[in-house]
Amino acid sequence: MTLTEMGVCAKQAAAVLRTVSTAQKNAALTAIAARLEADTDVILAANAEDLARARENGMRESLIDRLSLTADRIRAMANGVREVAALGDPIGEITDGYCRPNGLRIQKTRVPLGVVGIIYEARPNVTSDAAALCLKSGNAVILRGGKEAFSSNTAVAMSIRTGLQEAGLPADCVQLLDKTDRETAAQMMRLNDYIDVLIPRGGAGLIRSVVENATVPVIQTGVGNCHVYVDKDADLEMAAKVVVNAKASRPSVCNAAETLLVHRDIADKALPLLSAALREANVSLRCCERSLPLCEGAVAATEEDWATEYGDYIMAVRVVDSLDDATAHIARYGTGHSECILTDSHKAAESFTLQVDSAAVYVNASTRFTDGGEFGMGAEIGISTQKLHARGPMGLTELTSVKYIVYGDGQVR
Amino acid sequence: MTLTEMGVCAKQAAAVLRTVSTAQKNAALTAIAARLEADTDVILAANAEDLARARENGMRESLIDRLSLTADRIRAMANGVREVAALGDPIGEITDGYCRPNGLRIQKTRVPLGVVGIIYEARPNVTSDAAALCLKSGNAVILRGGKEAFSSNTAVAMSIRTGLQEAGLPADCVQLLDKTDRETAAQMMRLNDYIDVLIPRGGAGLIRSVVENATVPVIQTGVGNCHVYVDKDADLEMAAKVVVNAKASRPSVCNAAETLLVHRDIADKALPLLSAALREANVSLRCCERSLPLCEGAVAATEEDWATEYGDYIMAVRVVDSLDDATAHIARYGTGHSECILTDSHKAAESFTLQVDSAAVYVNASTRFTDGGEFGMGAEIGISTQKLHARGPMGLTELTSVKYIVYGDGQVR
Repeated sequence: MTLTEMGVCAKQAAAVLRTVSTAQKNAALTAIAARLEADTDVILAANAEDLARARENGMRESLIDRLSLTADRIRAMANGVREVAALGDPIGEITDGYCRPNGLRIQKTRVPLGVVGIIYEARPNVTSDAAALCLKSGNAVILRGGKEAFSSNTAVAMSIRTGLQEAGLPADCVQLLDKTDRETAAQMMRLNDYIDVLIPRGGAGLIRSVVENATVPVIQTGVGNCHVYVDKDADLEMAAKVVVNAKASRPSVCNAAETLLVHRDIADKALPLLSAALREANVSLRCCERSLPLCEGAVAATEEDWATEYGDYIMAVRVVDSLDDATAHIARYGTGHSECILTDSHKAAESFTLQVDSAAVYVNASTRFTDGGEFGMGAEIGISTQKLHARGPMGLTELTSVKYIVYGDGQVR
Repeated sequence: MTLTEMGVCAKQAAAVLRTVSTAQKNAALTAIAARLEADTDVILAANAEDLARARENGMRESLIDRLSLTADRIRAMANGVREVAALGDPIGEITDGYCRPNGLRIQKTRVPLGVVGIIYEARPNVTSDAAALCLKSGNAVILRGGKEAFSSNTAVAMSIRTGLQEAGLPADCVQLLDKTDRETAAQMMRLNDYIDVLIPRGGAGLIRSVVENATVPVIQTGVGNCHVYVDKDADLEMAAKVVVNAKASRPSVCNAAETLLVHRDIADKALPLLSAALREANVSLRCCERSLPLCEGAVAATEEDWATEYGDYIMAVRVVDSLDDATAHIARYGTGHSECILTDSHKAAESFTLQVDSAAVYVNASTRFTDGGEFGMGAEIGISTQKLHARGPMGLTELTSVKYIVYGDGQVR
């Protein structure tokens, strides 16, 4: 099937999804979850093919782990789909409604986006996660997974399509590209007649490539150079706890902190304490001139460090002269993901939250909370770092659009 | 100044705008309005240069009229700016706020987009309209007007910048590109580090070019192939009034109807009546095989007619077998702008509004109401025909983003 043919099928499926009830969508999700569990052996066999190929190509062990499926992991995927079924349905919500002086009744109503394209990398669980979220929000989806997980993704997509049909919905609500070459991906990024929005999920390289090449509207996700700023009025015990958590609880994820900024008035007291706590958590430090003598075992930072998302047990440290200097540093080097101020000053908290232009701004809490689950959305399709359409964690609501329905009795203009 | 330098200045201005009060923004708008009126002679002299050049180049009279300024038109521009000052400020609204089980207080707060880029064509009043809406919503703006209006736009922008400075705000809140070549426009479309969103305002060619070439997120505006469907249960007197208004009250605008669809059961009765009313309003008809014998003076339509936005006193006419056929026609040929059903059947109205995937769907009212003013937004920056971020008329709220502000007392994950 060509990409255009897939687009036509997706549009037809989207037209059906636009009109089905929440109960029908939930029944399909339940059928999909059951089908995934029933097909465990088939999916594991397909996954074994991917793993054999990966080992042949000398893939790193950490990536092989991300690619590996087990019966438990498949059960977790199925339960993830069931959790989406349990979430509220955003479709049909009237987000605004009013009457105009001429008697027109205007209802701004939440509707599906239509057809969503997802381009992602190695993890096969994204296939079921993304499909479930798109389905629940009434969208047809075209998935383009990484070539490393091609056999696994194909098997998972097959189970999903079977589940859809068992529940009486078109299989084409969920389609997986059967080619993983770059040219087909590039073609998908320009399928404006059929795809309403494109969401890349993966590393900075993938996201950059989509932003560069897509003509379909894109939601940019995931790059996070996050900062924690310890103000002069910070509680140092709390600061140590939050800084260590923000950096070291899971350094590989996008909401982990990368740079520690410390007000000069508190640096002498704070840095020996914070650096010791970080060292204890296996974090090595890259320090500015002023912080270097205060942090045992640290090395000197270079300009490059301020702009680096380490994704590792490394943290950059800088002493700043003021809160304004801290926010200026963040404006210059940050990626607009998540930043935190630690302070007991109300005025400082207000200034920081007003000045910092990021998706999530924290007062006295870890940046690690920027997550759909932690924000109470139940599940997320990604974390938007752009300002258009959605910002921060994206749940079901962020996979919707609106439509104005206007009732009259013959009004003309 | 290079485009990058302009981007740096815009970001600095946006950082200031993010923190100023509504009163300060309104004071600036008032100062700008006064400045525009005070500078009337200067603006008219600049406009005379544009008009002389236009006449030299043999510009059509209708376009020359769009380009022409008078003292009255400048006063209208100033009053437009004052009207924006009178509108409510969307910034700072907490659109959602809740407490998580761990005690985190999450506030989803409305913030400016940051830097908006506007690319537009001939009308110089867009310069002040767009600047005022961006300023009120806390955004810095980089304007790129058409080369035909270059002198006028430069004079208007100068007055705006003077007004900003008089009110104590940075002049760089509003910048106008001093080059109107294609290469500079293309460079602006890829200025991702400095521009948060790009809004093209103009004809289909301009919008296509922006969608094709931009890497900055775009809001697509304006193309409208709108439909009116006369259901078998329509009130024919109301239908005649609405169809004529939708087509002929102002054929050049995007919310004007282009195609009339009529249910076969009512065609014999409806079409002689509707075609007579349209003929009376100087509209010529292009008809399908079945409607042609029922419409006096009409000519046969070709496949191309269904997809054409005439922008003129021309309307395509087609008889359909059912409501579903009508919505299938709209899905195939429509641009997702505005569609209308005329019916007294509740079921038909519900089906139509559910099935039709357009920004605005009308029951018994003219498509001409798709407009920021008519929707009660006070003013509009354009009408979005995409589904991401904003759909339908875009007012101040649509020029904003959100930010999550999260308050804790030391929470870690």
